Amino acid sequence: MKKIRIGIVGYGNVGRGAEKAVLAAPDMALRAIFTRRDVQSIKPADKSVPVLPIEDAEKMAGEIDCMILCGGSASDLAEQGPMFAKHFNIVDSYDTHAKIPGYLASVDKAAVNTTAVISCGWDPGLFSIMRTLFESSLPDGAGYSFWGPGVSQGHSNAVRGVPGVLNAVQYSIPIDNAVEAVRNGSRPELTARQKHLRQCYVVAEPGADKQAIEQAIKTMPDFFADYDTTVEFISETEFASNHRAMPHGGMVLRSGATGENTQVMEFSLKLESNPEFTASVMTAYARAAFRLAEEKQFGAKTVFDVPLTYLSEKSRDDLIKELL
Amino acid sequence: MKKIRIGIVGYGNVGRGAEKAVLAAPDMALRAIFTRRDVQSIKPADKSVPVLPIEDAEKMAGEIDCMILCGGSASDLAEQGPMFAKHFNIVDSYDTHAKIPGYLASVDKAAVNTTAVISCGWDPGLFSIMRTLFESSLPDGAGYSFWGPGVSQGHSNAVRGVPGVLNAVQYSIPIDNAVEAVRNGSRPELTARQKHLRQCYVVAEPGADKQAIEQAIKTMPDFFADYDTTVEFISETEFASNHRAMPHGGMVLRSGATGENTQVMEFSLKLESNPEFTASVMTAYARAAFRLAEEKQFGAKTVFDVPLTYLSEKSRDDLIKELL
Repeated sequence: MKKIRIGIVGYGNVGRGAEKAVLAAPDMALRAIFTRRDVQSIKPADKSVPVLPIEDAEKMAGEIDCMILCGGSASDLAEQGPMFAKHFNIVDSYDTHAKIPGYLASVDKAAVNTTAVISCGWDPGLFSIMRTLFESSLPDGAGYSFWGPGVSQGHSNAVRGVPGVLNAVQYSIPIDNAVEAVRNGSRPELTARQKHLRQCYVVAEPGADKQAIEQAIKTMPDFFADYDTTVEFISETEFASNHRAMPHGGMVLRSGATGENTQVMEFSLKLESNPEFTASVMTAYARAAFRLAEEKQFGAKTVFDVPLTYLSEKSRDDLIKELL
Repeated sequence: MKKIRIGIVGYGNVGRGAEKAVLAAPDMALRAIFTRRDVQSIKPADKSVPVLPIEDAEKMAGEIDCMILCGGSASDLAEQGPMFAKHFNIVDSYDTHAKIPGYLASVDKAAVNTTAVISCGWDPGLFSIMRTLFESSLPDGAGYSFWGPGVSQGHSNAVRGVPGVLNAVQYSIPIDNAVEAVRNGSRPELTARQKHLRQCYVVAEPGADKQAIEQAIKTMPDFFADYDTTVEFISETEFASNHRAMPHGGMVLRSGATGENTQVMEFSLKLESNPEFTASVMTAYARAAFRLAEEKQFGAKTVFDVPLTYLSEKSRDDLIKELL
């Protein structure tokens, strides 16, 4: 069987996760890694895989069946998505929920002869699948998404932006009472504060005003003001030994009814590595993007558009026999 | 908007559940209920809905956009599936896992100008979706399906077949230790006995040999011999007051890894009414069958073949805006 030739764009945590996933997939070959950094600074896991400047990617159109875009939504994808979709089938994990329709349109415009599956990590991605499947299966009900316990990169970055902060990490923690209420079949209306706690671990600059830092964090609009937030100051050493992992996870729940009967649906993830899992899901969708393109199903797609048969390494017959 | 015209075939627990689901769906109209029983004996929830003999169904080809087949796999569907698929778009919950490929082929052969989505309840159905999505997202791992706590109709019927048994119900109970081991990221190899307990509540005939009944149940091959089984004798009164509900549920789990990191995925259902939930899922797939047929995507399909956009009452744009 001819292997699906994959390119990885961006070699941060997600890019390295994609590298692992692609190297482990028996039906894929990792053709190249593209980076904006000095190519010499990058040591790929498989030394035979070329590391190339991102500007050289276009020259490889025709040699790569799908590009896995591993950059961030704001900094990278808004530009890279449409740019790469002109020449390559792509997948990405674009996750600025409010801007997805606009991003989808811009990628779709570019993907005239290519297939692009956008926003296909775990949220957006698997969680989106669950929200839709749950709502369709149980229309009379209420849906809930909880995130964590885990590290939110966005909130961690926000804390790191506070003057006097050297380093920081923010854990989002779902509030047990809220989760249990839904699991037990009620349909509570929950404020942001009732759904998640925010725990910050901060390394302050020597001599910084810790009270001012704590105050600045807790009152930060959007990120923290609407939540119960804890701030704990720790040393750089403690940070390095206890807070460098990137666990995450969360739950999608739906509590509803058919007639008089309560029905509860739940999906959960417990992830030791958020970026590796995101990359692993994207790698499955890279397979789908390639197969859709082979059938000339071009344009920008979401997880809502892609049948599961396209995701699996197994044939449809085997899926039906083994997993239906 | 023109409503999707639905027919329901079979008016047992699942059929009555489908009736509720269709009457609650704003984009559907319940056109008729078909039964093998005396039509006078059936009192539909909406008195304006005609109840007709199943033999008259064929005359209504062209007046029904999708038939929801609510019969059992062995007794009804093996024959009804191909028969109805000749003239109607259909959905069903065919659940004899080992025979699905053959059933799919026989329905596919009949569905030349129609669309049939088979085996689209919760297992097979939603659980199958999870097994495939989990395996594709996390290839290095092990998958597990647990059923219950809940009533297994097949096992209850098996107990009712034992001489001296007047009435009986069997609850399948997942074994906590097994579930917790998987949740904690290990990949145990589990025997049938290690995964589920079987609890039987039996009403015996007056004067029956209870020891013989218990022995007959516990040694029954396939159904009970490979499990730890408990048998409790109760009165008809207790049976009527405590054991007439049809709760069910279960879990699909996958415990795996990306690189060195453990990742755990879980889906669970907690259902007060198994037949109503099955019917509710089938009703969503009835929408999909109709829409696929409108696009001339004919033939027999499974949940692996149907994109989520076809299931939801919402438009693709709204799904992307609200749920992605």
